[in-house]
Amino acid sequence: MNQPIPATALQLRSLVQADGTLQISLEPTPVPAPGPDEVLIQMQATPINPSDIGLLLGPADLSTVTVGGSADRPLVTARIPERAMPSLVARVGESMPVGNEGAGLVVAAGSSPAAQALLGRTVAAIGGAMYAQYRVMPAAQCLPLPAGTTAAEGASCFVNPLTSLGMVETMKREGHTALVHTAAASNLGQMLNRICQKDGIGLVNIVRKPEQATLLRELGAQYVCDSSAPGFLSDLTGALAATGATIAFDATGGGTLAGQILQCMESAINRNAKEYSRYGSAVHKQVYVYGSLDTRPLEIQRTFGMAWGVGGWLLFPFLQKIGEPAAQALRARVAAELKTTFASHYARTVSLAEALSADAIAFYGQRNTGAKVLIDPSR
Amino acid sequence: MNQPIPATALQLRSLVQADGTLQISLEPTPVPAPGPDEVLIQMQATPINPSDIGLLLGPADLSTVTVGGSADRPLVTARIPERAMPSLVARVGESMPVGNEGAGLVVAAGSSPAAQALLGRTVAAIGGAMYAQYRVMPAAQCLPLPAGTTAAEGASCFVNPLTSLGMVETMKREGHTALVHTAAASNLGQMLNRICQKDGIGLVNIVRKPEQATLLRELGAQYVCDSSAPGFLSDLTGALAATGATIAFDATGGGTLAGQILQCMESAINRNAKEYSRYGSAVHKQVYVYGSLDTRPLEIQRTFGMAWGVGGWLLFPFLQKIGEPAAQALRARVAAELKTTFASHYARTVSLAEALSADAIAFYGQRNTGAKVLIDPSR
Repeated sequence: MNQPIPATALQLRSLVQADGTLQISLEPTPVPAPGPDEVLIQMQATPINPSDIGLLLGPADLSTVTVGGSADRPLVTARIPERAMPSLVARVGESMPVGNEGAGLVVAAGSSPAAQALLGRTVAAIGGAMYAQYRVMPAAQCLPLPAGTTAAEGASCFVNPLTSLGMVETMKREGHTALVHTAAASNLGQMLNRICQKDGIGLVNIVRKPEQATLLRELGAQYVCDSSAPGFLSDLTGALAATGATIAFDATGGGTLAGQILQCMESAINRNAKEYSRYGSAVHKQVYVYGSLDTRPLEIQRTFGMAWGVGGWLLFPFLQKIGEPAAQALRARVAAELKTTFASHYARTVSLAEALSADAIAFYGQRNTGAKVLIDPSR
Repeated sequence: MNQPIPATALQLRSLVQADGTLQISLEPTPVPAPGPDEVLIQMQATPINPSDIGLLLGPADLSTVTVGGSADRPLVTARIPERAMPSLVARVGESMPVGNEGAGLVVAAGSSPAAQALLGRTVAAIGGAMYAQYRVMPAAQCLPLPAGTTAAEGASCFVNPLTSLGMVETMKREGHTALVHTAAASNLGQMLNRICQKDGIGLVNIVRKPEQATLLRELGAQYVCDSSAPGFLSDLTGALAATGATIAFDATGGGTLAGQILQCMESAINRNAKEYSRYGSAVHKQVYVYGSLDTRPLEIQRTFGMAWGVGGWLLFPFLQKIGEPAAQALRARVAAELKTTFASHYARTVSLAEALSADAIAFYGQRNTGAKVLIDPSR
């Protein structure tokens, strides 16, 4: 509030061109005056989530990234493989703002009491186009952060918290009593561990490296299975038998893992089977794919009977399906436990321009555990 | 009724031994006297459905089949690949009767009026253990065939008719308006075509050979896509756009076909998309796997957004889920249209002993279109 609000400010845009070039840039964009029920947020913290990377980088080949332009206004270009273009038809030529969620300072507010009440407050919001110096939002959609909570602490209070709570809620609503999570050492995975430990829910964590297993065990996780270990399938079957988990949320979305989970669930169930059924157990086994860390095709060897499903899982359709009161209950829990259960951690904080450096793209573009980046557009 | 009822009669049994040997034999089994509410059926016609082949042959390697024993009591042995044994643990050492459904003559009946009413009638039934010279069934579970209907005509009046009707019913209950079927030239596929033509439902038929496409077109099918043709994906997308089909029933269960169907559904939906969504279309796209004609792993390249599902579909859990009145309505339709919509065709009729010949096993073991075999245990 010390600086005057500029007439235009930078907004990050991602553009797929018809020739298969991806272009990412910072575009000067008019800063709108907030309407009566709106506020203008000076963005101070907005995370690069895996779901943002999908829109930001698309399926571009990261080995072809080049960065031109100036230090303040870098211009990133990269090639998109031809086979990926058909799925992008609808965004060709459409310059797209990026950034699902973030937090910042309300520097201007409309005339309504609700908007005025937020002036000078640090708020969090979800709604896209957050990778920008300024963002107008309806006052009703802003979450005022509790006193003593910084924008950085509140930047990730929607996507990961609601996704991890949504997994537990889906588990309950579909009649399961314990769950499996892959890429379990991620920010999201650690959050899910805190929820399950707090709520007494059985959670089988699947990780890809011994150090990730160690990390989760140090955080109190009881069942951790390392898919790189020789005894993985036997470890997993044991953990599934112990917890009774028959639903999994898979961040990888490729390779053999989803099928292995279903197979091990079936083996765990059959340990107690009284008689042979030619169709496998009658217990429904479900894997929901919510990420794409592994870009290979899903390879599912069906050795687990007929009572199974694999499908996509996405936060927003889930929230719509459960309805506003149920969704509001989830959001209230997040607000109450923002600094504990739902705390996020970042490896780096960068400016908008720094987010477009070759070094930063190579870092977050790997989508690795512990490589989460926070953008501070006010830098 | 001309012959006396023997004290023992032959029943086909399939046995998986701990050493990985499959053994199929005809075992003399006591013929029970029917209880008050039961009837004794002399079996005259029982089909070898794909679902029977799973129990009969298991995952045995058909190149290892040897047939010993005598002409009347052949003994089939074959090797089961080691990797398949874990899924068979519960049936090791358990000699299992086979044969889901069939029809025959009621030659003895219990004292109750319902049982007595069936004496001398030709009835159809489902319930397993039908590959036998005699089978006792509760009278209430027998379907008396209309006058003029032979046992051979009524032998397949449960599995294929209820499965094809169940697909249409699932389509409706899950909010879709048209459907896709693979291996569409099968007995089941032809039945589904008759249902959809009669009921005015859009059906996209996927076949693997030009002659199968020709066959279905001659039977009046409007949309037939040959997966061996170079323009398959484009043909399929066109048919999906024309029908609006967003649910598929897949008999193959392996390879890339299920994923291709989802991809083409998404492309068909996106033809009319107004704006780009990073998560793909919001329209749920579903493939239900109900068979295993292709024993390779399912290979799913996820290029169709997040609103999708692949899962197992099985007749009996479906019938349980919809409840008895709805299931009864389906059965009533089958009875009313048994010689038209729900007529089955067989390539061969064999005796029980002939069904265990190397030649017959090689024939039905391929699970090919047009290779359906009917067993007449009274021969």
